[in-house]
Amino acid sequence: MSKATLTISSRNYSSWSLRGWLLTKFSGLPFDEIVIPIDAPGVRAEILLLSPSILVPCLQHDGIKVWDTLAIAEYLNEVCPQAGLLPEDRAARAHCRAICGEMHSGFSALRGALPMNLKAHFPGFKVWSRAQGDIERVMEIWRDCLARYGGPFLFGEHACEADAMYAPVVTRFITYDVPLSGEIAQFCARIVELPEMKAWIEAAQAETEEIDELDVEF
Amino acid sequence: MSKATLTISSRNYSSWSLRGWLLTKFSGLPFDEIVIPIDAPGVRAEILLLSPSILVPCLQHDGIKVWDTLAIAEYLNEVCPQAGLLPEDRAARAHCRAICGEMHSGFSALRGALPMNLKAHFPGFKVWSRAQGDIERVMEIWRDCLARYGGPFLFGEHACEADAMYAPVVTRFITYDVPLSGEIAQFCARIVELPEMKAWIEAAQAETEEIDELDVEF
Repeated sequence: MSKATLTISSRNYSSWSLRGWLLTKFSGLPFDEIVIPIDAPGVRAEILLLSPSILVPCLQHDGIKVWDTLAIAEYLNEVCPQAGLLPEDRAARAHCRAICGEMHSGFSALRGALPMNLKAHFPGFKVWSRAQGDIERVMEIWRDCLARYGGPFLFGEHACEADAMYAPVVTRFITYDVPLSGEIAQFCARIVELPEMKAWIEAAQAETEEIDELDVEF
Repeated sequence: MSKATLTISSRNYSSWSLRGWLLTKFSGLPFDEIVIPIDAPGVRAEILLLSPSILVPCLQHDGIKVWDTLAIAEYLNEVCPQAGLLPEDRAARAHCRAICGEMHSGFSALRGALPMNLKAHFPGFKVWSRAQGDIERVMEIWRDCLARYGGPFLFGEHACEADAMYAPVVTRFITYDVPLSGEIAQFCARIVELPEMKAWIEAAQAETEEIDELDVEF
């Protein structure tokens, strides 16, 4: 299998970079990273907008360039089918894609009010009502998956596309001190204990670049 | 093939309903429509937010419920592979998914400033600068596809997932009098001349329900 390259930006702030990186790690496809500094044109704006873009994550492999997180997941699932990035069962696969799509296009209040910031911790952070609605919907999705497929990950035994898509949300819940209990707390602990997540978070803690105005979208 | 049901809302205002409906039509899967009135709880809010949701479009088939537009496209591509909803070539398929993902999660300025409204026409409409940037990116995507795959549709001979995803944008360009020329004008004309689009637009014109505050996100 030829080696891929994955373009990412800040490990601390870029939730879309984390998603693309986790997906590629889970797939087993060997890759080199290209890290665009926060101050590069476009990157800062994109992090502040808290939305995916054509800049990061971007996977290049075998002369093919894929620049959207869900498209990267589908591509990796095609070239590394043995990794099980998507569930084998058709109904579960459709369910997985639906909740990944929901994360991809929705939860704007959550993204705006609780931006990913792995180095920070805000005990007692006050969540406004629209973001609270998003938090409740995320937890409803997780509870439904854990009940239907038996855990410990969203679609069963191993981490898949959905776990990668929701992993940055787990870190936000921890950063912003969102009350967690029962199966939700266990699931969050499981995600941050993944070796890939531990490696990413450790590298994020060591990042020296800072963004001061992450609350621009409040 | 068992019959599906597709839940949609307003034909005039709901761009996500149009996308899901076109995808299902293109797939050839027979389906019944369930139309949720604009005033149903959640529907109005969703149209005003101009974002996809779990309400519409929602496809139900063989006991499987799929509620995200991209997930619907992937599901239909699996059950109706002969329809060619996604390109056959792996590189083209990855490209198709990337631009569909871009539409799915991005272009918020375009969506906010130029909401779909098939019954309206605003000659000389003034487009603000952020929305103009989105318009230019959309045209860049279309030009690239038409050049690479030879047209007349985005990925060649027949309309596919990408044409369904961008069809509401075509109608916005017409509604808001966005200057169109050359291949872009031809492509827009081709989309609105599709029999499926003509049928949808005719039904939208006949809709009696109105939303007055579509500019809430301006």
